[in-house]
Amino acid sequence: MTKAWVGVIMGSTSDWETMKEACAILDELQVPYEKKVVSAHRTPDLMFDYAQTAKSRGLEVIIAGAGGAAHLPGMVASKTELPVIGVPVKSSNLNGLDSLLSIVQMPGGVPVATVAIGKAGAINAGLLAAQILGIKYPEVQQRFMDRRDAVRRKVLEDSELG
Amino acid sequence: MTKAWVGVIMGSTSDWETMKEACAILDELQVPYEKKVVSAHRTPDLMFDYAQTAKSRGLEVIIAGAGGAAHLPGMVASKTELPVIGVPVKSSNLNGLDSLLSIVQMPGGVPVATVAIGKAGAINAGLLAAQILGIKYPEVQQRFMDRRDAVRRKVLEDSELG
Amino acid sequence: MTKAWVGVIMGSTSDWETMKEACAILDELQVPYEKKVVSAHRTPDLMFDYAQTAKSRGLEVIIAGAGGAAHLPGMVASKTELPVIGVPVKSSNLNGLDSLLSIVQMPGGVPVATVAIGKAGAINAGLLAAQILGIKYPEVQQRFMDRRDAVRRKVLEDSELG
Amino acid sequence: MTKAWVGVIMGSTSDWETMKEACAILDELQVPYEKKVVSAHRTPDLMFDYAQTAKSRGLEVIIAGAGGAAHLPGMVASKTELPVIGVPVKSSNLNGLDSLLSIVQMPGGVPVATVAIGKAGAINAGLLAAQILGIKYPEVQQRFMDRRDAVRRKVLEDSELG
Amino acid sequence: MTKAWVGVIMGSTSDWETMKEACAILDELQVPYEKKVVSAHRTPDLMFDYAQTAKSRGLEVIIAGAGGAAHLPGMVASKTELPVIGVPVKSSNLNGLDSLLSIVQMPGGVPVATVAIGKAGAINAGLLAAQILGIKYPEVQQRFMDRRDAVRRKVLEDSELG
Amino acid sequence: MTKAWVGVIMGSTSDWETMKEACAILDELQVPYEKKVVSAHRTPDLMFDYAQTAKSRGLEVIIAGAGGAAHLPGMVASKTELPVIGVPVKSSNLNGLDSLLSIVQMPGGVPVATVAIGKAGAINAGLLAAQILGIKYPEVQQRFMDRRDAVRRKVLEDSELG
Amino acid sequence: MTKAWVGVIMGSTSDWETMKEACAILDELQVPYEKKVVSAHRTPDLMFDYAQTAKSRGLEVIIAGAGGAAHLPGMVASKTELPVIGVPVKSSNLNGLDSLLSIVQMPGGVPVATVAIGKAGAINAGLLAAQILGIKYPEVQQRFMDRRDAVRRKVLEDSELG
Amino acid sequence: MTKAWVGVIMGSTSDWETMKEACAILDELQVPYEKKVVSAHRTPDLMFDYAQTAKSRGLEVIIAGAGGAAHLPGMVASKTELPVIGVPVKSSNLNGLDSLLSIVQMPGGVPVATVAIGKAGAINAGLLAAQILGIKYPEVQQRFMDRRDAVRRKVLEDSELG
Repeated sequence: MTKAWVGVIMGSTSDWETMKEACAILDELQVPYEKKVVSAHRTPDLMFDYAQTAKSRGLEVIIAGAGGAAHLPGMVASKTELPVIGVPVKSSNLNGLDSLLSIVQMPGGVPVATVAIGKAGAINAGLLAAQILGIKYPEVQQRFMDRRDAVRRKVLEDSELG
Repeated sequence: MTKAWVGVIMGSTSDWETMKEACAILDELQVPYEKKVVSAHRTPDLMFDYAQTAKSRGLEVIIAGAGGAAHLPGMVASKTELPVIGVPVKSSNLNGLDSLLSIVQMPGGVPVATVAIGKAGAINAGLLAAQILGIKYPEVQQRFMDRRDAVRRKVLEDSELG
Repeated sequence: MTKAWVGVIMGSTSDWETMKEACAILDELQVPYEKKVVSAHRTPDLMFDYAQTAKSRGLEVIIAGAGGAAHLPGMVASKTELPVIGVPVKSSNLNGLDSLLSIVQMPGGVPVATVAIGKAGAINAGLLAAQILGIKYPEVQQRFMDRRDAVRRKVLEDSELG
Repeated sequence: MTKAWVGVIMGSTSDWETMKEACAILDELQVPYEKKVVSAHRTPDLMFDYAQTAKSRGLEVIIAGAGGAAHLPGMVASKTELPVIGVPVKSSNLNGLDSLLSIVQMPGGVPVATVAIGKAGAINAGLLAAQILGIKYPEVQQRFMDRRDAVRRKVLEDSELG
Repeated sequence: MTKAWVGVIMGSTSDWETMKEACAILDELQVPYEKKVVSAHRTPDLMFDYAQTAKSRGLEVIIAGAGGAAHLPGMVASKTELPVIGVPVKSSNLNGLDSLLSIVQMPGGVPVATVAIGKAGAINAGLLAAQILGIKYPEVQQRFMDRRDAVRRKVLEDSELG
Repeated sequence: MTKAWVGVIMGSTSDWETMKEACAILDELQVPYEKKVVSAHRTPDLMFDYAQTAKSRGLEVIIAGAGGAAHLPGMVASKTELPVIGVPVKSSNLNGLDSLLSIVQMPGGVPVATVAIGKAGAINAGLLAAQILGIKYPEVQQRFMDRRDAVRRKVLEDSELG
Repeated sequence: MTKAWVGVIMGSTSDWETMKEACAILDELQVPYEKKVVSAHRTPDLMFDYAQTAKSRGLEVIIAGAGGAAHLPGMVASKTELPVIGVPVKSSNLNGLDSLLSIVQMPGGVPVATVAIGKAGAINAGLLAAQILGIKYPEVQQRFMDRRDAVRRKVLEDSELG
Repeated sequence: MTKAWVGVIMGSTSDWETMKEACAILDELQVPYEKKVVSAHRTPDLMFDYAQTAKSRGLEVIIAGAGGAAHLPGMVASKTELPVIGVPVKSSNLNGLDSLLSIVQMPGGVPVATVAIGKAGAINAGLLAAQILGIKYPEVQQRFMDRRDAVRRKVLEDSELG
């Protein structure tokens, strides 16, 4: 079995509906990954252990999705040297604005690479992970470029309306 | 030396300007407390240790202040059975709206008792701690009521303008 | 009949859909409570009477939920020495942002322990009441911890996705 | 001494800087008024008494200014049959957005006639009180119209720039 | 036929769904009114004529509802000496926040008595019109108080939940 | 004397500080213009007259700046067939967000070409007016392009930092 | 075949639902136009080429619609001397507030004539294009005025409610 | 001379005050970089050329800072296969909320790794670049960890207040 390069974690099983978009991209670009529910607030020790052992287990990038007072990406970032990508999951009351601010407004010292709210953000989290890995693994970068070219061709083909 | 009943923590020394208001109230109401900088992002292990040992060290309430992507109150709450009061410190760019949403929008399961942004919030954090302790220690409740009466008399005395 | 320790009040019968979550938690943790519609704007005298007699009737914590220009928690807090927990009920137009700001932005002197907007907030209001009571009643604190452990185990069991 | 027709109240002496603009307008339009600090949260009984006796003391309109979780206008409105004008005082952290929403978003049943945030709002509160009184007292309406005409002429005179 | 005391106008027929709540209150309190679509942007001359002749036609209060860049209440206020009540109609994209700010943030000199966004605001516009008229017509004030008492009794009757 | 092609109007003399940036651009591009204070709320008849006669007086574009509940651009647009450019002037409390929403959220039927809040917006209002005139007057379009090229060269020259 | 005067472009086929309103107006006013999907992010070279050649291909105005981090209108504006109208398409999470700010807050130097969020904005984009063309082509200005008069008559006919 | 691994670009010389924080971090961690003003709106061709040639010139990560309608990070991301980090520079009117939303809300397909508004964000952009490079260059990762440990020790040393 291939070792995972990317760890995709999320605060709750209800985030899976959003975060599966990140996994679909990683599947498409043949980037090995693992996925797991890790809750900052309900399983804090698991979270710390996950973050702390991430590098030694072979992970190179972590994608973390959470909603509301979304502490998972920032707390994982505080416990690992790996780049952490944060996905603000749309919240039921404030449309994900709370998720976005809780993830992106990190203090100087502990970055989280934040992407857009919701499914577009999850897709981009997968792509960003591939771009990051791509500076080390040329074949991942190539697949990223091939996908982008294919999307471009598709947009051009469909650009005439009506 | 009296054992502290309240632990007043904050994410950075720059939060002290705000959080000292909470301490001033605790001094005034003769509630023993300790104060410390504990950063969720820069000293995560200290934070977990602080929260985990809080009860056994005799603390009964924790007041935690932080700004921006303010994770300290919520993460401490995930590691202690004690009530945690969160103070959103005013942030430099978004006026503390990010701090407020990062603290108050906790998911079901891990409450943070959130107060107002900035100094008014820090004052109220001290008073709320006293109210909570007051259901156990009648003398604290009495002092809380005495202070409130004094404030009331002062407002009434000054109510004629000009 | 056991005397109520917690008073759960709300501004309108339509808030019950949200506030019943707080009651469910209190039931689960065996914390005796009473519940009632008390409107700050439509029954102001009842509200003042409720708040003023709360302690003498044996209450130790008050949970108050309201939406829009939500004045109930703050006004009750102005008339009692007990800790007051405020639940911002989701409003029809501004998604509860108005409820949240009306409850949390209290001036220095009169704290309201504010929780998240909507049902997550109501659940946490129940839990926070239990945490507060727990510093006086060890058995309530124990039940709070047992529930948290059970939730943790459940999250860990379900953490493998797909 | 003339009996006051308008009661100008505010939650704190610090609101006077804003609310004196309302009084200046009432002076200018020769509308008798009284002014007083009445705090919803620190002097709730005074507030209720003030509102309840307002009509019998001869008041016909109430202007209430407050900031943050601004409960004064709405609570006064719940205790009087007189029209209540609410002035959202600019708050230190959220620029008065919290004050505005706390005052204007009243539930159906208890209106507050809300004006703009800050000094422009206080000026307009004075003018609105005069307009309301003007439907009963033609001389007040006349003075309101005279002032408006004078302002108009002034704007026209100064309309050439540079 | 009784002459109308209140003019209820709105920017578009689609606002009627909201504004009919104001009319229902006026019917209930037996306040004579007229209703009409008057668009600030599509029928500006009609709007100016309406506002300018309002007093001479016997109107004493104007209620104006509009959404989005809601200019109707403020522009009518600029052309009449009567008090103008503004109702921010919920807009399709920004939930009425744009309507609210466009109506309430009037410059010093031309007040609009603003109420809450949507139906609650329309109800309160009707009640506020009655309160304003009530300072001149005691029977309207009496009916306002009777309705409030009835509402209060109803809330008290239904205050026991479950 | 050259007839003005652009009418630059603003709601108050205090808006001149912002709006003079638009005039500076028009001067630079040699576009003849007139400037005047025209207040939607304080001089509504002047505003209607200004808008109604704009075309017959030779104007081809109108630039209107206003702050807060900014009704000037939209009301002028309702009374002229000329394109109207709206500049949201920064307001003292809500940073111009109220100005922006009051100007841009016009209902279908009456467009206002809205630019950025404050001075950047005023500069762009001048440039946009030149672009619009440029489709009719090639020399204006040429001057617009020359200015843009000059700016570009300047940015390129200064692009090496430090 | 008539050459297009207006180029209507949008970032994605899903924007067509909104942008077809602009085309319907152009059809109604007999303004020749072309329409196309041009994505700033997925087809950047096509976008630059489209903007750069717009004038030489005979276009006189460009209407560009986009949602979220909406870069299309501003980037097209940076590459053409023609006036560019930007339509903020409603986004799925933040209701188009992100689209609006991304389009309207252009830096001094490169204006985008921004209209309202969503369908009302698309309608107004079509009308604004006609107003702009109308200063050069009197028959377009005439048709714009005829349409406005027709709308006015329709509003007046339907102004009696119920 | 060492080839640059990171390209630090910004939309205007006024952004340097913010972006120099990113460069200070890169200096500290001995990561070779280049810096340049590249304006999306004023030098679009330079921007495209910069992005397109970035990889062939040896860059591995791009950091792009911009304010207001901040299009630079997203447009650069559309033209390169390298990971792009976006820094929302604080804007003069909306405190950087416009910058943040313009950068982070990218559509699915073109990610921008967004960090916090202002200087904290610029610091974190430098650190995130180092983390990304660190998965390829162990010595960079080591320096990142050493710096983090040093910060941690400093926080711990200073954690006793007063």
